[in-house]
Amino acid sequence: MKRVRVGIVGFGTVGRATADIISKHADLIEQRSGIRLEITVVCRRSAIAREHVPPGAKAVTDWKQLLADPHVDVVVETMGGTGASRELLRASLEQGKPVVTANKNLLAEHGDELFSLAAAHNLPIGFEASVAGGIPILRVIHESTAGDQLRSVHGILNGTANYILTQMETRGIEFDQALNEAQQAGFAEADPSFDIDGQDARDKLCILARMAFEGRLSVSKIPTFGIRHVRAIDIHSATRLDSTIRLVGSAEQTENGLEVAVRPWLVSRRSMLAKVEGVNNAVFLVGDKIGTQMFYGRGAGGDATGSAVVSDLIEISRDLAAGQLSAKNISGFLNSHQLELCSNPRPVAWYLRLTVKDQRGIVARVAEVIAREAINIDSLEQEPHLPKDRVSFVITVEPVSEPVIRRAVDTINAFDFMVEPVLLLRIEE
Amino acid sequence: MKRVRVGIVGFGTVGRATADIISKHADLIEQRSGIRLEITVVCRRSAIAREHVPPGAKAVTDWKQLLADPHVDVVVETMGGTGASRELLRASLEQGKPVVTANKNLLAEHGDELFSLAAAHNLPIGFEASVAGGIPILRVIHESTAGDQLRSVHGILNGTANYILTQMETRGIEFDQALNEAQQAGFAEADPSFDIDGQDARDKLCILARMAFEGRLSVSKIPTFGIRHVRAIDIHSATRLDSTIRLVGSAEQTENGLEVAVRPWLVSRRSMLAKVEGVNNAVFLVGDKIGTQMFYGRGAGGDATGSAVVSDLIEISRDLAAGQLSAKNISGFLNSHQLELCSNPRPVAWYLRLTVKDQRGIVARVAEVIAREAINIDSLEQEPHLPKDRVSFVITVEPVSEPVIRRAVDTINAFDFMVEPVLLLRIEE
Repeated sequence: MKRVRVGIVGFGTVGRATADIISKHADLIEQRSGIRLEITVVCRRSAIAREHVPPGAKAVTDWKQLLADPHVDVVVETMGGTGASRELLRASLEQGKPVVTANKNLLAEHGDELFSLAAAHNLPIGFEASVAGGIPILRVIHESTAGDQLRSVHGILNGTANYILTQMETRGIEFDQALNEAQQAGFAEADPSFDIDGQDARDKLCILARMAFEGRLSVSKIPTFGIRHVRAIDIHSATRLDSTIRLVGSAEQTENGLEVAVRPWLVSRRSMLAKVEGVNNAVFLVGDKIGTQMFYGRGAGGDATGSAVVSDLIEISRDLAAGQLSAKNISGFLNSHQLELCSNPRPVAWYLRLTVKDQRGIVARVAEVIAREAINIDSLEQEPHLPKDRVSFVITVEPVSEPVIRRAVDTINAFDFMVEPVLLLRIEE
Repeated sequence: MKRVRVGIVGFGTVGRATADIISKHADLIEQRSGIRLEITVVCRRSAIAREHVPPGAKAVTDWKQLLADPHVDVVVETMGGTGASRELLRASLEQGKPVVTANKNLLAEHGDELFSLAAAHNLPIGFEASVAGGIPILRVIHESTAGDQLRSVHGILNGTANYILTQMETRGIEFDQALNEAQQAGFAEADPSFDIDGQDARDKLCILARMAFEGRLSVSKIPTFGIRHVRAIDIHSATRLDSTIRLVGSAEQTENGLEVAVRPWLVSRRSMLAKVEGVNNAVFLVGDKIGTQMFYGRGAGGDATGSAVVSDLIEISRDLAAGQLSAKNISGFLNSHQLELCSNPRPVAWYLRLTVKDQRGIVARVAEVIAREAINIDSLEQEPHLPKDRVSFVITVEPVSEPVIRRAVDTINAFDFMVEPVLLLRIEE
């Protein structure tokens, strides 16, 4: 039996769940792996209530104290953000201590720097918890598809947005009410923009795409659209089309490069994406040889994310105990070639919802814009009996590439009868 | 770069797909792992057509020749069966050569012996390909849930049975026609019993349960029922109940021990199990901390299974090149404690379909048997206008434990008006 001493920085939901799992399952883990995990130091800026400090552990308020403590072998970072967390990871690696992090934002923005540093010190960074909570998708990509050429990775990567969409769908409520309730239930932050505007999903997609396609990808280059403008009428229209709406991050290898984006999709009710409800996540992998695989589970929450942290801790601790620490598991981040983004995306079908002040000739003018771009309308529906100052209608169009549909949408958005911008959804193939 | 030389015994669908993946992706694998995989010897009892022999490899007809060849570092077994394959694995381990196998039947029946031998020689056995084809479920259980206590593992483990059921469902055809077509399409063997009677799923479930619950489990102790007696009328009745039918292997930890069985389930159309169609597989894990996870993908076929073989080969080759071979990944098989099977299963709801020669008073007699066991009927339906010599009716009952429903079914089966035995389906909760 080997003892490995763990320090946890950031003692919120995930940090505490990690400590709880280690305390509760220490015997089980030891029996399985021969490693005794012990939490020796926990750190939070504000004081930690005595009953939450793991037995035998010391509580500190400055991460530098934790890092200076000689009784810490591995550092767990669950504080979030990209400031102090970045300093912590740098300092820890420079001291020769491996780290485990759940911080997608940090890795999406500073992955190049941190993984280069890890490689220079031949140390691992465990980051399974940074994407899709408890779903072991990074390990799957790294180990299980090691002999295959992946073509696509896509999925539902943000539990908050998915919770809001499924609440709107099952209860017929408006976006604002669903968001409000999600905030009250603790599924959404007071400032929800990171979740509902797609940045959280974008950060995770960036990490997934780098793992799957092995190259550098600047997170700022990923086109990102959220669900803030999805309305009850869209869910209603989706239902009429035997579909529903999901926020999807996708990266697909095409002949013209990598197509990557986060955006709301209209998905068939029969599709697996539609079956992913509430705060769950799902990630699809498509490979030359493996075909299509799907990995589903809780995408957030302390227990699921903490489980992923602990699985990384066990792996790193085994290597540490065997004297075999190395900077493995990070090929995509270490590969210096830039992933080439696609300049000429594949044609896909689209859903457009327009909300207008009713006046004569609107349909004709919109249809003319669409015709001018040589786009074929597949369906058009305007609900009867809507208030004249806020009439919505929905158009679905046959496959056309994004720049073309964007051009049409931009022209339509400039019309004075538009009450709000067009809502654009990609229609799942 | 390290060269690792591979010998493949059994050069059928999976063996050839494995060779193809290695040939096609050798550069990719080398770039990712630093390992150059080379196929040096392939073995099949009957001669292998010249164009199928990998470039640079030798073809032999006796596995002993392959094993005696000094140019083989790792042995891949894809010949199937439990005779020669068992001898091959034994001999290979005794010579100090690690093995990778896709043979669920061999591991379910002789796992204790083979894994003990591997442990004695401190050698790995790669067996990801033995369960659920390309889905990396064994690695997930071993690595990603290493810090959690699993409560249940269940899923659709046989692609052939699932293909037949979904063909019956989507096309309204009878079992015999669906089986026939599956055989013609190459999805079912000439003797299909291993797939349709549940033994194949049982073998995989045995391996899964041992991995998840870490103990010995004799495959012969797993109650196993197949789909041979499922009829179009059952699919029809299922649809009326907004459900469909799936063959499910399940192992659940309960207060009274492990409940384990392979049997057809009636599953809600809204459930994830219902979304698994065709030859696909899906495995669900439920853990204290991870909650419910689901892993989905192609459960059979050369490419998917070959991908799993290659992922094991890469992992073993890395360890081999680093001089770190060990008998890891097999804790469930090495644990000497016997998994305790549940003698008092939890109550669940059931579906019973009876096919009878019509005569007065049948419903009353059947209902009396059910009432005598204190079972509550939830629904009862007899379709009108059926031929008098073959009338089917369907009963669903409220939750009751299996021994109780079995007793009722046995009594009913003894009635002289029964044309064939009752079809019993577990209803998904």
